[in-house]
Amino acid sequence: MPREVRERQMMDAAVATFGQRGYRAASMDEIAELAGVSKPLVYLYLNSKEDLFTACIRREADALLAAVRAGVVEPDLAPDEQLWAGLTAFFAHTADNPDAWSVLHRQARTHGESFAAEVGAMRGELVDLVTGLLRDAGRASPASPDLGDRDVVGVAQALVGAAEALAGWANETPGVSAKEAASTLMNFAWTGLGRLLEGERWSAAVPGGRLS
Amino acid sequence: MPREVRERQMMDAAVATFGQRGYRAASMDEIAELAGVSKPLVYLYLNSKEDLFTACIRREADALLAAVRAGVVEPDLAPDEQLWAGLTAFFAHTADNPDAWSVLHRQARTHGESFAAEVGAMRGELVDLVTGLLRDAGRASPASPDLGDRDVVGVAQALVGAAEALAGWANETPGVSAKEAASTLMNFAWTGLGRLLEGERWSAAVPGGRLS
Repeated sequence: MPREVRERQMMDAAVATFGQRGYRAASMDEIAELAGVSKPLVYLYLNSKEDLFTACIRREADALLAAVRAGVVEPDLAPDEQLWAGLTAFFAHTADNPDAWSVLHRQARTHGESFAAEVGAMRGELVDLVTGLLRDAGRASPASPDLGDRDVVGVAQALVGAAEALAGWANETPGVSAKEAASTLMNFAWTGLGRLLEGERWSAAVPGGRLS
Repeated sequence: MPREVRERQMMDAAVATFGQRGYRAASMDEIAELAGVSKPLVYLYLNSKEDLFTACIRREADALLAAVRAGVVEPDLAPDEQLWAGLTAFFAHTADNPDAWSVLHRQARTHGESFAAEVGAMRGELVDLVTGLLRDAGRASPASPDLGDRDVVGVAQALVGAAEALAGWANETPGVSAKEAASTLMNFAWTGLGRLLEGERWSAAVPGGRLS
């Protein structure tokens, strides 16, 4: 079996174990057993528990970023539809990969500064991506000249923070689907609470996503 | 000097040291020196670095919750104005107490599950508080019968996540004030991105907070 295939199996087993049991409780024995290899082989390939965990964080952060980027890539979409596509991709990915999201959202942030810094880097890329989308949306809307650069970054920070919190909640709450979570956030973020309470909803079916 | 006064001085010194230097790097020597007491006295009063840090997290979580609760307590305010008051109180408190916010938002979440659980409990209380406000707002608005219980909790999760992310960003970004951060979030949350990009802004001066 080629090294990269075997390494991927070990990493899959590690993400499942770290995500379900937690970083501290997870043992290299369990990971090796789940991967169907010997423990010395895990150490040979991935060096230490710390290095293995770091490799898991990086792989899963890259996968999440790639999923979100793939979601917003359609250039023909209106700004709010791009945002909707990105949010849907984010929630679909975190729902489909609950162990990976647990590694990124819970485990990596809880067990020391070097792991937390890896997740911080991913977060920064998500904020940059959303900032770019919001700038494009602002340019497409001539009525918003006073939405300054700092405001845009602030809103992007708020949106990413909201998405992270919702994804954590959705994965821990039985019966909440990725689509529901994306819809909750899109209604909240795009339509605003004020209009939400008046009974309005954001809808991708309406041109520009705006309801009259 | 009474024990409680001395203990408060030690905790003040501990919050400043943990917040500025980080949990791992902070030493009991530094904390004792900053508090103007001997190191054995810190151990005598607060037992261990872990216990001292836990006591700091609890004290600062209680203080933040009390500040937010005091902000929303005015019963005559409209729902959006209560939300605005709560957000303003949250951002004012985190801005006025950057070391405490660093302890809660960065340090406590990064150094092990027992500390993270303390912050998780505070987060749960904030979500409950916001959920209650949103329920009241929903009841006051007859047009929103289909904003279900689960939606309300989801929106509360999103709003608290957004507020946490913005407070972290505001404290790390020179020149961003608490009021600006509160205003960014209120515009985003209440008015919605769709209307924000059309040039609208939420304003407490307009009855009900809604701009036509």
